[in-house]
Amino acid sequence: MPISQQRLHQTLNPRSIVVVGDKGPNYGWLQRQKHFSGPVYSVQVDPNEIAGIEKLGYTNFKSLDDVPGDIDLLICAVPRVVVPRIVSDAVKRGVGGIAMFTSGFAETGEPEFAEMQQRIVEMAMGADMALVGPNCLGIYNRRVGVRFGDDQEVGEGGSVAIAGQSGTNTSGILSGLQRLGTKVGRAISFGNAAVLNECDYLEYFANDPLTEVIVMYIEGVRDGRRFFDLARRTALSKPIVVWKGGQSPAGARAVQSHTASLASQNSVWDALLKQANIIGTGTMEETLDVAAALAHTQQPTGRGVALIGMNGGQAVALSDQFSHAGFQVPSLTERSYEQLAAFFTAVGSSYRNPFDAASTIRSEDDNLAKILEILAGDPSIDGGVGLELGARDLDTGAKELDRILQLLDGYRQQTGHPVICLMHDQGGGEGGAEAMVRARRYVGDRGFAVAPSYQRGAVALGKVVSYYEERARRS
Amino acid sequence: MPISQQRLHQTLNPRSIVVVGDKGPNYGWLQRQKHFSGPVYSVQVDPNEIAGIEKLGYTNFKSLDDVPGDIDLLICAVPRVVVPRIVSDAVKRGVGGIAMFTSGFAETGEPEFAEMQQRIVEMAMGADMALVGPNCLGIYNRRVGVRFGDDQEVGEGGSVAIAGQSGTNTSGILSGLQRLGTKVGRAISFGNAAVLNECDYLEYFANDPLTEVIVMYIEGVRDGRRFFDLARRTALSKPIVVWKGGQSPAGARAVQSHTASLASQNSVWDALLKQANIIGTGTMEETLDVAAALAHTQQPTGRGVALIGMNGGQAVALSDQFSHAGFQVPSLTERSYEQLAAFFTAVGSSYRNPFDAASTIRSEDDNLAKILEILAGDPSIDGGVGLELGARDLDTGAKELDRILQLLDGYRQQTGHPVICLMHDQGGGEGGAEAMVRARRYVGDRGFAVAPSYQRGAVALGKVVSYYEERARRS
Repeated sequence: MPISQQRLHQTLNPRSIVVVGDKGPNYGWLQRQKHFSGPVYSVQVDPNEIAGIEKLGYTNFKSLDDVPGDIDLLICAVPRVVVPRIVSDAVKRGVGGIAMFTSGFAETGEPEFAEMQQRIVEMAMGADMALVGPNCLGIYNRRVGVRFGDDQEVGEGGSVAIAGQSGTNTSGILSGLQRLGTKVGRAISFGNAAVLNECDYLEYFANDPLTEVIVMYIEGVRDGRRFFDLARRTALSKPIVVWKGGQSPAGARAVQSHTASLASQNSVWDALLKQANIIGTGTMEETLDVAAALAHTQQPTGRGVALIGMNGGQAVALSDQFSHAGFQVPSLTERSYEQLAAFFTAVGSSYRNPFDAASTIRSEDDNLAKILEILAGDPSIDGGVGLELGARDLDTGAKELDRILQLLDGYRQQTGHPVICLMHDQGGGEGGAEAMVRARRYVGDRGFAVAPSYQRGAVALGKVVSYYEERARRS
Repeated sequence: MPISQQRLHQTLNPRSIVVVGDKGPNYGWLQRQKHFSGPVYSVQVDPNEIAGIEKLGYTNFKSLDDVPGDIDLLICAVPRVVVPRIVSDAVKRGVGGIAMFTSGFAETGEPEFAEMQQRIVEMAMGADMALVGPNCLGIYNRRVGVRFGDDQEVGEGGSVAIAGQSGTNTSGILSGLQRLGTKVGRAISFGNAAVLNECDYLEYFANDPLTEVIVMYIEGVRDGRRFFDLARRTALSKPIVVWKGGQSPAGARAVQSHTASLASQNSVWDALLKQANIIGTGTMEETLDVAAALAHTQQPTGRGVALIGMNGGQAVALSDQFSHAGFQVPSLTERSYEQLAAFFTAVGSSYRNPFDAASTIRSEDDNLAKILEILAGDPSIDGGVGLELGARDLDTGAKELDRILQLLDGYRQQTGHPVICLMHDQGGGEGGAEAMVRARRYVGDRGFAVAPSYQRGAVALGKVVSYYEERARRS
């Protein structure tokens, strides 16, 4: 019998945390919870570690029994051999759930430790205890401030939820989305998926009113039927992005020693994704891009896009990439062309769509406003706008960027079409990379999808449109 | 009759430069030549501009006739209407070549300006004058210090040469390669290709002893037969990478208004690339990656790679990406496994290939050396090593990075196999992006191919291997 969703809810939204077995010099598991809204206790028996823990201001207990009040979440970082005892103690103590960082179980391929994992599973199952892992980083909740990474943000908001079988990949998606200004509300790194598995997490996010976009990194599916039934139903109202690890023979070998997962056949997997209208991705980057686009674009209604580059080379490249991703970059109406001709610079620019617009769009005039107004009224453009935002726009500072974003927001509200900002890495001296990272974040924070290359933006938006098209067909 | 290669050589390797028509407040064309090894003169008739130019220390003349000595390169930044007179003066003065920044000719689609371009072409052709452009950024030569961008480096070395029809895309490839620690010796942004075209530049680089890798961005080919004959012969000894812009209908429309190029049919283009063993790319990023991999890898001899990730999620993702790009990630021999088992950490790591190695490779031990030694002796690995270099390695500073690179260099020299360093964007606070940019540069400077994502690295290396395989079949 699966763990009850109520227990999982308690664990993912804890009011109290106990960290068992944290170690110096950093006491990372305790320290990461410094923004947590409730009490954080430590359980540790090693006198040397206790001194360090108490020095940091945490109350330490030598036994779980001594911890006061209810324990919603136990973060377990003890050595492998101690794990069965901790789980047994947790069951007796009525702990809500465990995030089990400790590894070295089924994934080692050694019968002794696979057996040990089995014992833990049975204890947790018997007590309806929500054990996340083992061999994982555990739980992140933006609102209550539970974290498994030092750079994970705390605060309100966050419509994206992530559940991933790899700690690195889950962290990577999370921090990558943060860098794009896309808030993540929850993340679960679930490793060996021994007690709770991908189905349980998917079910939770499917029913979670705070979650609007579900992102998963999966190495193997324990119960394919349950997973795909659930996914198909969920995808009718919430997009699900799944990055599948182990899609190659060597990758399949790797997932076995990573999370003891059994890989599935690719062709079967792809067919199932399609059937369920899951958005499949193949890399960390693609996963980030699609999630950012989903979080920030309204439901697209078409594939005719307007592309605005700041010079000819960009206009060509934008067109090629969006075309390859399944968009049309249509000619505009004669009326639009007449209106554009009235103010477009004749030399070194073009407005046929794609736009080569740098010499026309200047901060001191309202030409971008005019262009967007014309596009909003042109029936060929039903798929939104892709706009290059480059060094030139950012150099003039936040004020100019604000002005551009305000205009884009007006377009978006008027038309309901998506807007994607294309902000690729650029040259420039020391500090240029950091400036671009900050600018992407700034744009994302204002609710725009940001892509760090034309191809990545086009492919991501293409996947988003395909998802909504299929969803519309099904409803 | 094409312009003589001798004239082109003079223009690309000038001993003197005249900038005609530079304007304040920045006088960018003059200022970019500040590292140039010979004299830089200005020609300008506007008294206001002359004052600014002389204030910066440049000698200004009111007429080309007054400039002393031979003029190898004239950089032309005058308004369009003045261009015919400047070209006529340059012909009389016996100027070697012109880099013509001025735009607004055939690419406007207006007969008047197409005609004006034609007049310029005839003058240049009649005088065997190497006119680059118009509608372009012109010439970069790392060694002599001619530049068209502020961030372009000056100095010795640079085995990569770039010729591109878009200024932005040519600059982008150039500065992107610099950021990856790949030195570019020469670059030509050639815009409308009115006098000299892609064939002339390709021929020059083909015969240039300093150029080992040729990279092109092309929007249209003027003389397909000459181009592909030349490319096929050249590719037998030098790799040629071609990024074709305008591969989609909208892109084709864009190239026409960008550089007045006529797009070719995709299927024909692809067949020609294959016939000539040209490495085709589709985006800026792919072009960069392939060029960096070509510049820094020895000729690969196989497709069996060893992949070293720092944790399980990375190991899985590396395997998937390299498999998709046509590599095998083979199991090692039993002997190798026995040797690896002797020192590999049992928990939370794996050495089956891919490697999940973080808990085994520590800066204080020689485990990476042992791994590389074992891989060098394993017959399954004939395609080299892909190694994740992440925050962990960089945090410990240049000394640790140096140690790793020294070991990788030893492996490379012992086996002749390529090594690719996978260094993707990572989380981390303020300064993290800049630190990664610096680290990539550091690694590239030491002669290693660097890729900013697993997919990009795998795809690039795959293209490099395919090129050399095909080249071996033909020789």
